[in-house]
Amino acid sequence: MGLKVYGVTLSPNVLRVVAALNEKGLDFELVPVDLAAGAHKKPEFLALNPFGQVPAFEDGDVRVFDSRAINRYIATQYKQTGLDLIPSKTPTVLAAVESWAEAEAQQFSPVASKLLFEIIFKPMFGLGATDPAAVDSLSADLGKVLDVYEAHLSKSKYFAGDEFSLADLNHMPAFSALMTTPKGELIAARPHVKAWWGPGSEVVF
Amino acid sequence: MGLKVYGVTLSPNVLRVVAALNEKGLDFELVPVDLAAGAHKKPEFLALNPFGQVPAFEDGDVRVFDSRAINRYIATQYKQTGLDLIPSKTPTVLAAVESWAEAEAQQFSPVASKLLFEIIFKPMFGLGATDPAAVDSLSADLGKVLDVYEAHLSKSKYFAGDEFSLADLNHMPAFSALMTTPKGELIAARPHVKAWWGPGSEVVF
Repeated sequence: MGLKVYGVTLSPNVLRVVAALNEKGLDFELVPVDLAAGAHKKPEFLALNPFGQVPAFEDGDVRVFDSRAINRYIATQYKQTGLDLIPSKTPTVLAAVESWAEAEAQQFSPVASKLLFEIIFKPMFGLGATDPAAVDSLSADLGKVLDVYEAHLSKSKYFAGDEFSLADLNHMPAFSALMTTPKGELIAARPHVKAWWGPGSEVVF
Repeated sequence: MGLKVYGVTLSPNVLRVVAALNEKGLDFELVPVDLAAGAHKKPEFLALNPFGQVPAFEDGDVRVFDSRAINRYIATQYKQTGLDLIPSKTPTVLAAVESWAEAEAQQFSPVASKLLFEIIFKPMFGLGATDPAAVDSLSADLGKVLDVYEAHLSKSKYFAGDEFSLADLNHMPAFSALMTTPKGELIAARPHVKAWWGPGSEVVF
């Protein structure tokens, strides 16, 4: 039995799940998927995730796919283990966890993942040179999202108030990757976003 | 106090929340937002949703934004009222609810919303004529997602098994809108997807 994460830790989506498991203090096995050989499009992997993308997850004979779905499964199924990632001690806290978790999924990540693709993954995988115009446009779009974050985090220690939650955790892989690039400036230029990412975050991959 | 949905029912994202409230049998007030006048970008609305998009939601003095976040809030806060939208009687059921709810958010909706924009909203709002090449490309992409759904729904009555859940409900507004267009053929051509949408779905807006 046991917990298995299928994927490679180069993928921010895989790291999102690894971060949740580490935060919970749960042991797991990382099962490499040979993306270069197309292993994620073969029947064995498609049985784990019919969309053929990493990560996939197994908890014994239970299968989950999509990094955010996996993290919600972990948060619910292992609610009593380690930190409660979906705190709901008041309706206001629950509302904030849900709202800002979806901000990550619907506002931040669609832009941040395209930007990371241009800066990091496109050249890394020989898919062409980084397009400076695309980087400028995506940086401007990401800046608008981060402006909303800056205003929010000026009033809130974590995304959902005083407690670290899934809304914080799901942002971590893309923040971590951005900080390795010159576009980390988008984070560094916003003091409350920077403070949230910096000493305020105690989680290490 | 009471429940308030801010938005217009022309928006599939607003209808997603209306569907959840109807499924739960919860009374609510629909508060119109004058998008044409830019009311969603004014301070009063930005206090409800800092990203300036409909829907926003109030439960007394608790505020939630983003349709999927609102539906999760409703499913959790009103878990005992009406149907349980996030059933978790077994880990396998929970895993399926979470996986297929994220399939809606990450695989289906990004394509379906662009297709609906081309076919319905672009001409409706005078933003230009429908681009036939974009419609063809988006239809092909949506077809690939629906092929995965067809295979899954050939083995499962609802997305998460025998019980209707959030994974089904969150799909409904875009399915409903697609069925009013010629691209309803993408659904009608796949017998198990069609059966899921047809007599298998008892929910009416």
